[in-house]
Amino acid sequence: MSNIVFEVGMSLDGFIAGPNGGPDNPIGDGGTDIHLWMYELKSWRKRLGMEGGIENQNDKIMRHSFERAGAYIMGRRMFDEGEQGWPEEPPFRAPVYVLTNHPRDPWVRKGGTTFTFVTEGIESALEQAKEAAGDKDIKIAGGADTIQQFLQVGLIDEFTIHLAPIFIGSGVRLFDAAVLRELEFEKEEVLDSPLVTHLRYKIK
Amino acid sequence: MSNIVFEVGMSLDGFIAGPNGGPDNPIGDGGTDIHLWMYELKSWRKRLGMEGGIENQNDKIMRHSFERAGAYIMGRRMFDEGEQGWPEEPPFRAPVYVLTNHPRDPWVRKGGTTFTFVTEGIESALEQAKEAAGDKDIKIAGGADTIQQFLQVGLIDEFTIHLAPIFIGSGVRLFDAAVLRELEFEKEEVLDSPLVTHLRYKIK
Repeated sequence: MSNIVFEVGMSLDGFIAGPNGGPDNPIGDGGTDIHLWMYELKSWRKRLGMEGGIENQNDKIMRHSFERAGAYIMGRRMFDEGEQGWPEEPPFRAPVYVLTNHPRDPWVRKGGTTFTFVTEGIESALEQAKEAAGDKDIKIAGGADTIQQFLQVGLIDEFTIHLAPIFIGSGVRLFDAAVLRELEFEKEEVLDSPLVTHLRYKIK
Repeated sequence: MSNIVFEVGMSLDGFIAGPNGGPDNPIGDGGTDIHLWMYELKSWRKRLGMEGGIENQNDKIMRHSFERAGAYIMGRRMFDEGEQGWPEEPPFRAPVYVLTNHPRDPWVRKGGTTFTFVTEGIESALEQAKEAAGDKDIKIAGGADTIQQFLQVGLIDEFTIHLAPIFIGSGVRLFDAAVLRELEFEKEEVLDSPLVTHLRYKIK
């Protein structure tokens, strides 16, 4: 069955990106440190067209996550930050629906990634993503605003935080909305490793 | 050897207290939910003069934490919020040094808890706490401002976050200072249970 999920790297002080982010500085100052655990993994390197890499519990988690993703939804700012930097064959390898106010023709990339620009809001994006995902998961890729929007309307089934043992200090907070208080969830699983703690939660 | 430590319950969105906190509403709206894992524990109940309670991994963690604490340091606001509510025999059972601008005679309570009011700043409080703690730990009890102050001047050796699977939405954030970015730490241990994930970190 298709679940609507998100998973995101977060610093211990709650940031998913550092300050001064933009197309030339995609995850903001210091932001790449949040994802240190990923860069050495075989499944991550493979998605970026690189050889080698480590196969361990983290790699298994990442591989499983890639395999389960049937479609992605992302906010316009995340797309703008990534557009220049993603390789010709972006790591998604599935349809990506970009929430935006600016109509644009679909952008077909190599390896199965097509960016489709949705101007009719999150419900429309979700409908198209469901169609595309089949029985795989629909992943809300980010950024924080988009994730909070989906959380607030109760559309998320499950989410995973990859908690990094660092402070970012300022930038983009993942959870920054008073209305989130209403949401009830329970912890499903915690898996730990030196550079990251994976915390998986299920919305009630 | 005496370590300077803090341990604190935090919601997944980074709060250690809800909004509208004060002497009549000690942990703010919804704040007690952060500590749900504690209330059933034998060692917690014992400290509050109650019989019974559960003995499990969480209880062991809490008992160890109480046993290791040789002295506490807390901010004035935390003291003000607790003063009315703490029982005649407060759960600290060790000297507590309160950072304040208002001189006041020591307040001696039953069971070993004496509140001493320190007007000369954190270094002075720390000196007195060290003297009192012997080879036990000095615990920075809170609130968030006091903890951040100790972190920023590099005085913390180790800290534990008791991460609760809830959102608080607004209130008092534990980590809310850009300068924290400079701090380097590593994860020492993660212990999980349904109501709480204990994350222990060591400052480098």
